[in-house]
Amino acid sequence: MGCVIREATVEDCEQIMSLIQEIAAYHHLEHDVTINSEVLKADGFGANSFFKCLLAEQPAENGNKPGRPIGYALYYFGYSVNHGRMLYLENLYVVPELRSKGIGMKLMKKVAEVALAAGCKEIKFVTVEWNQGAKDFYDRMGAHDTTESMQWHCMELGWDSLQRLAGN
Amino acid sequence: MGCVIREATVEDCEQIMSLIQEIAAYHHLEHDVTINSEVLKADGFGANSFFKCLLAEQPAENGNKPGRPIGYALYYFGYSVNHGRMLYLENLYVVPELRSKGIGMKLMKKVAEVALAAGCKEIKFVTVEWNQGAKDFYDRMGAHDTTESMQWHCMELGWDSLQRLAGN
Repeated sequence: MGCVIREATVEDCEQIMSLIQEIAAYHHLEHDVTINSEVLKADGFGANSFFKCLLAEQPAENGNKPGRPIGYALYYFGYSVNHGRMLYLENLYVVPELRSKGIGMKLMKKVAEVALAAGCKEIKFVTVEWNQGAKDFYDRMGAHDTTESMQWHCMELGWDSLQRLAGN
Repeated sequence: MGCVIREATVEDCEQIMSLIQEIAAYHHLEHDVTINSEVLKADGFGANSFFKCLLAEQPAENGNKPGRPIGYALYYFGYSVNHGRMLYLENLYVVPELRSKGIGMKLMKKVAEVALAAGCKEIKFVTVEWNQGAKDFYDRMGAHDTTESMQWHCMELGWDSLQRLAGN
């Protein structure tokens, strides 16, 4: 399916936020989303950028502006002590009604190009065990599940623990 | 045990690299380390910094310089689409002969302070299932294992897959 991938700007934050809410609803995690579009603007497009974002859009027809984004990839750069520069893919999403049309793969191709251009050796991300569609998608591109092969576990230290640790 | 935590500088890269090699040897992954101290210098202290690093050192005695670092925490900033700003702890390490003396906890306390100062809401990291010492350490500070509670799996897309995806 024809779609255009472009880098998000500060003007896209409302629409990115809608997609984030959509994903959260899909995972029944609406209550868990504590950010909003103003936070996204400050965190992604302020003096210190904590993430970058690629948007997939349907091409403008007859000179019309493209509509809302139909998918996105939100990522940041990180580091592996073994392999060096790395891209962390926080989230990849395509709206349900337009899946299986190659939009996710186009987004991933662009993410791979961005990673290589920045000198990254790998992309890391997280999947959920029950999401067979995502598993198949990433399997097809040759991704390794290091929770299965190396028994790696994802860990989180939340707000309360952080406060306690810091002695606040 | 008395130890000083400080931010690493470009001059520390040889010593950080020694610690990285030590950890890799401990995990029988020496062959998997493809970076060296020159790469660390460019990637951590160049125009684009891909990571930051805190070092633990024994305090200088009798005006002597402190010796080699006895531990380190290597991290970078990232983003969660649910909670916003986040610190990713790539690696925390204390030399084996000085464990269980509170050095790791001092490093974690400093990491928590850095995270909060940057406006982060959480710290994420990875542990290995068989490393009971690490599990106990992180349990004590209230960390959640999201592989167990949410069935999250750590995924990697390596160099060959990246090249293929990007069409190189």
